[in-house]
Amino acid sequence: MIQKQKAVVLSSGGLDSTTVMAIAANEGYELFSLSFHYGQRHAFELNAAKKVAIAFNAVKHLVIKIDLAAIGGSALTDTIEVPKNREKKQMDSGIPITYVPARNTIFLSYALAWAEVLGAFDIFIGVNAIDYSGYPDCRPEYIQAYETMANLATRAGVEGKKPLRIQTPLLNLKKSQIIQKGIELGVRYEMTHSCYDPSEHGLACGECDSCILRKEGFLEAGIQDPTHYISR
Amino acid sequence: MIQKQKAVVLSSGGLDSTTVMAIAANEGYELFSLSFHYGQRHAFELNAAKKVAIAFNAVKHLVIKIDLAAIGGSALTDTIEVPKNREKKQMDSGIPITYVPARNTIFLSYALAWAEVLGAFDIFIGVNAIDYSGYPDCRPEYIQAYETMANLATRAGVEGKKPLRIQTPLLNLKKSQIIQKGIELGVRYEMTHSCYDPSEHGLACGECDSCILRKEGFLEAGIQDPTHYISR
Repeated sequence: MIQKQKAVVLSSGGLDSTTVMAIAANEGYELFSLSFHYGQRHAFELNAAKKVAIAFNAVKHLVIKIDLAAIGGSALTDTIEVPKNREKKQMDSGIPITYVPARNTIFLSYALAWAEVLGAFDIFIGVNAIDYSGYPDCRPEYIQAYETMANLATRAGVEGKKPLRIQTPLLNLKKSQIIQKGIELGVRYEMTHSCYDPSEHGLACGECDSCILRKEGFLEAGIQDPTHYISR
Repeated sequence: MIQKQKAVVLSSGGLDSTTVMAIAANEGYELFSLSFHYGQRHAFELNAAKKVAIAFNAVKHLVIKIDLAAIGGSALTDTIEVPKNREKKQMDSGIPITYVPARNTIFLSYALAWAEVLGAFDIFIGVNAIDYSGYPDCRPEYIQAYETMANLATRAGVEGKKPLRIQTPLLNLKKSQIIQKGIELGVRYEMTHSCYDPSEHGLACGECDSCILRKEGFLEAGIQDPTHYISR
């Protein structure tokens, strides 16, 4: 029996990272799911991430608590209001206030540490450069530079082992294409959570940027949206 | 009055990072000291870092708790024995077991996030490629790759502001030269802590790699070592 290659998969419990988990599973990797508890305003994301890890038979689901609130600077960790009912073209102008400074850099750095301990050479992350281009740390040139750095940062880099890869299978897909891909691979999107501002029972607001992109994605894909929204 | 430039300085309370703090202070930066509580086996390092921040009039001293123990893989966070009484040439062969996977990458990533929130364009770190070359994330090519990545990761990178610099003033200095530099700038090394395996009252063991490099550095610099060791 051939031993499976290990992969660390960054999982938020959202639509994108869950699709990435399905892709990594489909490629035959042994999955190590990594989530962060970072002063999100709700725990629904983490519950979703746990369900997803179980659904895809991850060997381990690790939740690391990180203190981004100590640093501040974002609507997702501070008490700044989450913007509502914006059109896609408004989202695309400039860096959104939901941007968390250096968030992907911090997430990838923990993934890198874990990969090194596990002997994994693949890190999967659901960044996307199409639908929501305002985040600097979702651009392909950033991911490329991160991978170069990561290969110099670690034991594998010094000892000349196999190179580490940052895998971004969603980088150039539209939301509707991501959903189509996930449906093909059997993702049950009702277990995922995307909303930035859910109700106290975890219903999606339907109005934040994340909800709007999700709704439009299902519409464009011609697939029924299984999400429970507050006002419908 | 000209406004001072802000700098984030990574501070462990040890000899190297305290010298870096003195250098940044001497260059006229407004100092933001950043330390990590990461399952070190003792709190003496953090106490030292706090004293150092006060001594150099840092505007703020932020301690972020990070959970490296959840990831494992190092004598500094696991229960692996710290090696003792090694000669320098033994230290130089291969990657030491006190290496913490991706540690500098994680530290720098938090520094990057804080720098972005503060509007700082300089991050100081006390890495050194001479005296202890076994750590992959202390090499100049790693620091260079990190800086390139950091400039793509952040708002400043997208908006084309001033570039962010990772400053490593100790990179090519021997331990004795670091000590001489610090003494010139008025560092009181008795407030710093280097030992990997101190006594319960915080006395240095005198036998771990860190103590041995520190002792030899003072000896070579011809400066009296103010450290309190257990057995002398």
